[in-house]
Amino acid sequence: MLAFLGGTGPEGKGLALRLALAGEEVVIGSRDAARAQTAAEELAVLAPGTSITGADNLAAASQAESVFLTVPYEAQRPLLEQLSQVLADKVVINVIAPMVFQRGRGASALAVEAGSAAEEAQMLLPQSQVASAFQNVSAEELLDQSHTMEGDVVVCSDSPAAKELTSDLTRKIPELRPVDGGSLANAKYVEQITPLLVNINRIYKIHAGIKIVGL
Amino acid sequence: MLAFLGGTGPEGKGLALRLALAGEEVVIGSRDAARAQTAAEELAVLAPGTSITGADNLAAASQAESVFLTVPYEAQRPLLEQLSQVLADKVVINVIAPMVFQRGRGASALAVEAGSAAEEAQMLLPQSQVASAFQNVSAEELLDQSHTMEGDVVVCSDSPAAKELTSDLTRKIPELRPVDGGSLANAKYVEQITPLLVNINRIYKIHAGIKIVGL
Repeated sequence: MLAFLGGTGPEGKGLALRLALAGEEVVIGSRDAARAQTAAEELAVLAPGTSITGADNLAAASQAESVFLTVPYEAQRPLLEQLSQVLADKVVINVIAPMVFQRGRGASALAVEAGSAAEEAQMLLPQSQVASAFQNVSAEELLDQSHTMEGDVVVCSDSPAAKELTSDLTRKIPELRPVDGGSLANAKYVEQITPLLVNINRIYKIHAGIKIVGL
Repeated sequence: MLAFLGGTGPEGKGLALRLALAGEEVVIGSRDAARAQTAAEELAVLAPGTSITGADNLAAASQAESVFLTVPYEAQRPLLEQLSQVLADKVVINVIAPMVFQRGRGASALAVEAGSAAEEAQMLLPQSQVASAFQNVSAEELLDQSHTMEGDVVVCSDSPAAKELTSDLTRKIPELRPVDGGSLANAKYVEQITPLLVNINRIYKIHAGIKIVGL
């Protein structure tokens, strides 16, 4: 089972939907179990016959073998301090891109002392295997089943097992391709592509993603 | 005429070669005029019938209407302090991605107080129009005329004229596509893609570039 903590937001819902459609059992997590259940019911309507449930973040993390972090960056530290025991020995896939929006300036990357949200998560979860991935996949397009995804998912991790699992999950979403982005120290570059894409989206009125060419 | 300051390195030579092949008059600049002339002669052999000359950086910058910065980041500040007068009212295209290489860790982005090399250049050249572009185009592939380029050049600038000129020059290199990356404040995200690509290159033994999908 895969848990999506903070999975009531668009990115979490979109990834949960696509992976449920690929046959994965999915649980949406939220601080508020009722909100998680509402989100799960919405997704179940979009994808009849799939296994999508909702629970509070702790219950969702406890049930799952692997866990996606799709909370806003500000919520990462308190969430992981609360869940470090239950996440021990699990693969934790960090989708968070720390960003702020300022009127007239668009999106900017937030400075993170650890370098990246993913490295901070690994520090807070020393017994988990953290991978960084999926930051640059459009939530709107994930949620639109009629849309075939395109682009690459750069996967960074210091754990070969976490990198392999994350890459395998990427391949379950048709047309998405995992790219080995090396160690977790490279996650900061991938997280910082997100504000660039958000600003490009605003200029072109699109939902941009990235592809590594030459591969 | 286009000048390539620090154009004896692979990125400067590669861009100079491709733009000379596209019909642009090109001057290679270097601290050492003799080295610039040697590089120009090497390129002229690769591209007979084109206009490629060499000069010291000051003479190259003086002759040109538009100037590419292709020096290592460490050389940017002293170069621009020396040339700020001669570069006034010109378009300056910053190709620099501030990076360090560490044994066993690969490439990492250098922290730049101004945010990016391009923003630092604009601060040092208040009378010039600075654009940021071409950091993520492989020098090896630019220098290999048999290779058709692929990928996107994200162009950031606070000057609409500089952005337009840089985009027009991008289109002169077959198959490269300019993408409007918004203001110069976004240059840091583009510059930081370079160490990520360098590290991906090492993993896959390729010359990677990027493409914005969804455009």
